Amino acid sequence: MKLPDKEKEFLQWYTAVIAYANIVDNRSPVKGSNVIMPYGYSIWESIERKLDDELKKTGHKNAYFPLFIPEDYLQREAEHFEGFIPEVAWVTHAGNRKLDRKLALRPTSETIMYEMFRLWIRSHGDLPLKINQFCNIIRFDTKETKPLLRDREFLWSEGHTCHATAKEAEEQVRESMRIYETVYKECCMSFLILRRPKYDTFAGAVYSIAYDCPLPDGRTLQIGTTHNLGQGFAKAFDITFQDKDKQNKNVHQTCYGLSTRLVAAIVGMHGDEKGLIIPPFIAPIQIVIVPIYRKEQMEKVIKASEKVKEKLIKAGLRVELDKREGYTPGWKFNEWEVRGVPIRLELGPRDIENKQVVLVRRDTGEKLSVPTNSAAKEAKKILKEIHDYIQKRADKLLEDSISQPKDYDELVEIQKTKRGFSHANWCGDEKCAEKVKDETGADIRGTREDINEKPDGKCIICGDKAKEVVYIAPAY
Amino acid sequence: MKLPDKEKEFLQWYTAVIAYANIVDNRSPVKGSNVIMPYGYSIWESIERKLDDELKKTGHKNAYFPLFIPEDYLQREAEHFEGFIPEVAWVTHAGNRKLDRKLALRPTSETIMYEMFRLWIRSHGDLPLKINQFCNIIRFDTKETKPLLRDREFLWSEGHTCHATAKEAEEQVRESMRIYETVYKECCMSFLILRRPKYDTFAGAVYSIAYDCPLPDGRTLQIGTTHNLGQGFAKAFDITFQDKDKQNKNVHQTCYGLSTRLVAAIVGMHGDEKGLIIPPFIAPIQIVIVPIYRKEQMEKVIKASEKVKEKLIKAGLRVELDKREGYTPGWKFNEWEVRGVPIRLELGPRDIENKQVVLVRRDTGEKLSVPTNSAAKEAKKILKEIHDYIQKRADKLLEDSISQPKDYDELVEIQKTKRGFSHANWCGDEKCAEKVKDETGADIRGTREDINEKPDGKCIICGDKAKEVVYIAPAY
Repeated sequence: MKLPDKEKEFLQWYTAVIAYANIVDNRSPVKGSNVIMPYGYSIWESIERKLDDELKKTGHKNAYFPLFIPEDYLQREAEHFEGFIPEVAWVTHAGNRKLDRKLALRPTSETIMYEMFRLWIRSHGDLPLKINQFCNIIRFDTKETKPLLRDREFLWSEGHTCHATAKEAEEQVRESMRIYETVYKECCMSFLILRRPKYDTFAGAVYSIAYDCPLPDGRTLQIGTTHNLGQGFAKAFDITFQDKDKQNKNVHQTCYGLSTRLVAAIVGMHGDEKGLIIPPFIAPIQIVIVPIYRKEQMEKVIKASEKVKEKLIKAGLRVELDKREGYTPGWKFNEWEVRGVPIRLELGPRDIENKQVVLVRRDTGEKLSVPTNSAAKEAKKILKEIHDYIQKRADKLLEDSISQPKDYDELVEIQKTKRGFSHANWCGDEKCAEKVKDETGADIRGTREDINEKPDGKCIICGDKAKEVVYIAPAY
Repeated sequence: MKLPDKEKEFLQWYTAVIAYANIVDNRSPVKGSNVIMPYGYSIWESIERKLDDELKKTGHKNAYFPLFIPEDYLQREAEHFEGFIPEVAWVTHAGNRKLDRKLALRPTSETIMYEMFRLWIRSHGDLPLKINQFCNIIRFDTKETKPLLRDREFLWSEGHTCHATAKEAEEQVRESMRIYETVYKECCMSFLILRRPKYDTFAGAVYSIAYDCPLPDGRTLQIGTTHNLGQGFAKAFDITFQDKDKQNKNVHQTCYGLSTRLVAAIVGMHGDEKGLIIPPFIAPIQIVIVPIYRKEQMEKVIKASEKVKEKLIKAGLRVELDKREGYTPGWKFNEWEVRGVPIRLELGPRDIENKQVVLVRRDTGEKLSVPTNSAAKEAKKILKEIHDYIQKRADKLLEDSISQPKDYDELVEIQKTKRGFSHANWCGDEKCAEKVKDETGADIRGTREDINEKPDGKCIICGDKAKEVVYIAPAY
């Protein structure tokens, strides 16, 4: 099995690798609605678990709201409706009966949640309200679908909060950013935190912050968003509370989302010519044991492997022993490399004699013989080293993806070749954004939210006075 | 707040209690598609976590399949299609576009999963395949909806397995039963395990086993099912494998499901005139601390409460400290009783002096003063006692719900008054089942699967020779 070149033919590489590694089976009969296979799903489960922990630590509570949304709910916040209506799937019939009113399948849950928040919130004592929902989301995007990158059905976590003051909502935006960054770091992701331009803000929000990570083909992928909703939805849905001063006021809201798309980003960011590399702390299998033997040694080697497995599991590691018969060790090595298991443990008769095991790192390929007694301790150390190593490599990918074009010609040149993020001054005019989009396919992704960059000079596109320093990049 | 009488007006009691206790908010704008509130959802999360652990221990792997199912997939297994078609919701449009072919929303996932299983399974080495999915399910039942008892959208776990032999499939049925029983026991449920009559078997299955629990109003509730699918779907979907003997054979299949309906059963089975009683080991909050003080003592008592809370949490207990101001302790007692928290911990200035806390059991109301130092240990002991106590009470409810009518008149009399399970002989003829259904509203729920009961005498309905000993009861 040979994978396409990751840099030159990224999408082909991606498509091949998610199939070979059993992440997604894209032979689903419904376009854009994919089958997340057990191995792929277990990566999402690790992410979900980590995210759930962080959300609960910060006082979020999980709940479940209907998949179905009546049309008039979607319409209540006009911008929101405009934004989503082209993608909404409609249920019109049940059995042989036509429904009295058609029902939308949630493209996001603001409208159905906020109708309930209106009923739940009475006084300042009910605030802040911090709700999270893990669920499936339906968006019949007209663009070409790509497994996990752009699906018509995907899984996500959506956080929705209500606050007494604008200040608290603003603080909540920061908290959600810390939560997402914690999850991304667990996945060894490297990304820019960008405030989207006004015209690219989430439908109904005051401002939107997005997490964009670079992929090896020069395109960028949004792996999460946080929105400050202000009071727009609160007014449209009449969500009020009695404040300490006895006045009735509208709440201030935020929302944020993180989806199965993160799995695509992990694949794209860390994979190599051999396949996936799963970040050690979210890896469903952290160590795979491959026993090596001639037929007559089998029983002995398998028995020793079982013992090692038990020891590693007791030490809190996630381990699989590959004792399938009829496959050579080499064949197994390949398979587990494609699937990105961080450490391979090899065990043969001579190792048993020498009371040692061989640990092989998936990222660097380094081999290390260690005493069987200290295998768990060594493995844990190596997992942390792999974590740090692929984080550094991701940071390098991000760094290398950022260019500093000196003028518009150079910007166009870069965006037609290596692409990535071009760091430039912008006048703030949407027309300039359209021009660069038309001529290069790149979008103005926004301004840095984590650091303050002051514009200095002229818009790289039109030459007028610059108002913002932005990152320009093509996106998935 | 006074609740309706649980025995006399069960549904009114149920509806009131799930609202007061914040389990479900039934003011959702879409009929039968309810909002599971954070407290109710956290009970489901406990169940899900326990079930997930048991499934993983036994080699099941989670995955995710599309919500959308093409019509021709549903049709491939004819009985299955007949069974579900009246309830299927159809998506016909996306945005303003009419879809080329309408898509069903999964009423269950056999058809979409088995199409993929066909692609995944090649040889005996791929078997057994044991897949689980946690997801939302859509059934537009025409019967009246009732929150969690009968919804048009609900959440569930569906297990689907493939095996090389009929014997292994049969063993899998037993394994799934053990798993479900473990989960039910964690919820202190008492139930009958019944093999449904042939005509009431799951659409496409060889036989169906169901778990039926009694509710206080004499009706019974199915809280889970396990099906032996034989080779029916395998033939319809062409799922074959090469066996050790090099022959191509169809796999043998099983499937099983457990839904949010279990939350309704927990509410109905354990609640009392004060509200819910949540089984201790699945309770989102096991101990609620209510501090008791006059205004000038507040700071001191709250501080001591925080300390106790910390200690209990360190000991692995799930604890909430209710320090809301503006509510009397009595008001708080009521609220936490309605919500069914197993233990209330009261702490006042005198308790602090005496270095003690007061523990109050939700089930029996017993009060116990214990030294603060041993509060965690005592609480754990009491939680186990509550668990055992409500399990015994549930067992008694089941026992009392079973009647032994001596003839048809008595059966009718019982099924028109106290109802519950009537234990009787049956000839096996569906006409007799229809007769008793017409005249009493009760169904033949099936024969015991856990014990062997031999028919002895005549069918209680028609007087012909009996073939089976069955349980007859009205169901939700």
